[in-house]
Amino acid sequence: MNPITLAIDAMGGDDGASVVVPATIRVAKERPEVSFILVGLEHDIQQLLRKHGGDSLTNISIKHASEVVEMHESPTNALRSKKDSSMRVALDCVKHRQASACVSAGNTGALMVTARFVLKTLAGIDRPAITTRFPTMKEGHYSLVLDLGANVNSSSEHLVQFAVMGSVLASEVLQIENPSVALLNVGEEEIKGNDLVKATSNELSQIKALNYTGYVEGDDIYKGTADVIVCDGFVGNVALKASEGIAHLIFEYIRQTFTHNFMSKCVALIARRALKRMKKRIDPAEYNGAILAGLQGVVVKSHGGANEKAFANALRTGVRLAEKNVPEKIRARVEQVLDARQANDVF
Amino acid sequence: MNPITLAIDAMGGDDGASVVVPATIRVAKERPEVSFILVGLEHDIQQLLRKHGGDSLTNISIKHASEVVEMHESPTNALRSKKDSSMRVALDCVKHRQASACVSAGNTGALMVTARFVLKTLAGIDRPAITTRFPTMKEGHYSLVLDLGANVNSSSEHLVQFAVMGSVLASEVLQIENPSVALLNVGEEEIKGNDLVKATSNELSQIKALNYTGYVEGDDIYKGTADVIVCDGFVGNVALKASEGIAHLIFEYIRQTFTHNFMSKCVALIARRALKRMKKRIDPAEYNGAILAGLQGVVVKSHGGANEKAFANALRTGVRLAEKNVPEKIRARVEQVLDARQANDVF
Repeated sequence: MNPITLAIDAMGGDDGASVVVPATIRVAKERPEVSFILVGLEHDIQQLLRKHGGDSLTNISIKHASEVVEMHESPTNALRSKKDSSMRVALDCVKHRQASACVSAGNTGALMVTARFVLKTLAGIDRPAITTRFPTMKEGHYSLVLDLGANVNSSSEHLVQFAVMGSVLASEVLQIENPSVALLNVGEEEIKGNDLVKATSNELSQIKALNYTGYVEGDDIYKGTADVIVCDGFVGNVALKASEGIAHLIFEYIRQTFTHNFMSKCVALIARRALKRMKKRIDPAEYNGAILAGLQGVVVKSHGGANEKAFANALRTGVRLAEKNVPEKIRARVEQVLDARQANDVF
Repeated sequence: MNPITLAIDAMGGDDGASVVVPATIRVAKERPEVSFILVGLEHDIQQLLRKHGGDSLTNISIKHASEVVEMHESPTNALRSKKDSSMRVALDCVKHRQASACVSAGNTGALMVTARFVLKTLAGIDRPAITTRFPTMKEGHYSLVLDLGANVNSSSEHLVQFAVMGSVLASEVLQIENPSVALLNVGEEEIKGNDLVKATSNELSQIKALNYTGYVEGDDIYKGTADVIVCDGFVGNVALKASEGIAHLIFEYIRQTFTHNFMSKCVALIARRALKRMKKRIDPAEYNGAILAGLQGVVVKSHGGANEKAFANALRTGVRLAEKNVPEKIRARVEQVLDARQANDVF
């Protein structure tokens, strides 16, 4: 296995280098055999490395980039006018094979647009997709949902490609053998899905290389009914955001409820501890690191608000994807599926 | 104001008449001036009325219907082959002006298909929509989301009609003056919405009769950013089900957390009480009663699993919609909007 190198957008995220640098030091110490390139304002990074005692680590290097993509900057503007941004230069490292993966906590839209422009999609993949794992009722089981918002006008061909990518990612990242792949749909009998879903289901059911199990509904995301759940990016993004919305609402209600009802401080304390543990199980930051799948290279998107621990998780995801050479595995599987389809003359 | 009469599908729901009859008795006692027609198997209903002491109430009557639509029966089959079902006969009461509203806890798909066939949509409304209120971070504020699954291939014209219906419902049901209407969308800069949403936003912004405030995202449903949130039924259904899914997951985690961590029984007891109160605030059954809007008559869908209390809430919603003569108000508002558009030559 080739030595793994990560190119890290050191300036991305709400807290930029002050979170990224210590997180990188943490993972660099865990994985001395992996190399880490911190891309961004050299002076700032150097100072933080010293501050956090990372300047002595031989597997961390710095690559200067003079510009920073702002969190709310227009992605197209970032792509056009900031060719020396830490994000862009980190992606260039992957393009030029100086790194096998790029990790950024920066502007999601800018990362998607720039990554797609710099790295290009894999052969057989028309569009990249964003995915991350969702907790389920099944202890230790997670489901991968894609797309979460990279594409909002998906064709059934795009959804088929998402299904193939999801299947590979579930095997490689979640280590699930022959993962089940389902299509997100709605329940009412007489409106079993829209035209897109019906057409896609018909195609997926003909692909032997996929363990396609049919339709699931929104609540199945958290039931663990399927390992991979495929949907258009508009639907996936709404499902993700609505889930975050009601989760925040419930936690706010819990906070109010307990502060209203608990008499003794000790009880409130126990409750807080218990709820903190529980919240941890559902908190996306605990398994931070969304994957931009379908590109010629590994790209991991960390939450913009990620803390050191969460960003470290995104780095570990990047290392894992690079070690498993996931892009190559996706390319191979897509090729296999396309060949089989041409043979079956599905189209 | 004309006397209000409700036609109630007495056999609908998981528990049928054994829940519907006592719930009806409860509301009939609250509202002696409102009449309630229990539609279904006369003998069963008669027995339950006697059992629950409702046989003496003069504002409850029985209308016999010999068939029952099963909860998982195909809606088209129910429509075609069960013309004497309690659901169908209750809807016929509304059609023939014997009742001003129909309330059913039966098969959702069958109710949608049969209601649309029997009552027809209002002038200017191409398709009915399902909506219900969602709890938000704002104390005492709810948002109406539509469509939740009646239509999964909506055109922008359909979404505009949903917006008008939602606006009327928010004023009449939630008593919000000049309710704000938003369009559900996704966040990423460069993919600000799919083609449908962009086209719809353009149209909504030209309708002066609506307080259109632009785009919101999935988490805004629970933030209370807008009073009415409009989306295609596929998206709305996924958002609703995903929310239910993660809510169940969180409550399951809470249950586990507390049973694991609380030592003393008294603490566990306080916690249970507190959580029960909190869960109540988020529980859809607490404000049970989804509205099938856009039909020539009031149709309220109760949860199939509704208990007596929840079904009573659905009945109260039916009474309220009938008292406010909501269908007529929707028709008038749609007409007003259509006229204005023709005048503005929007199309």
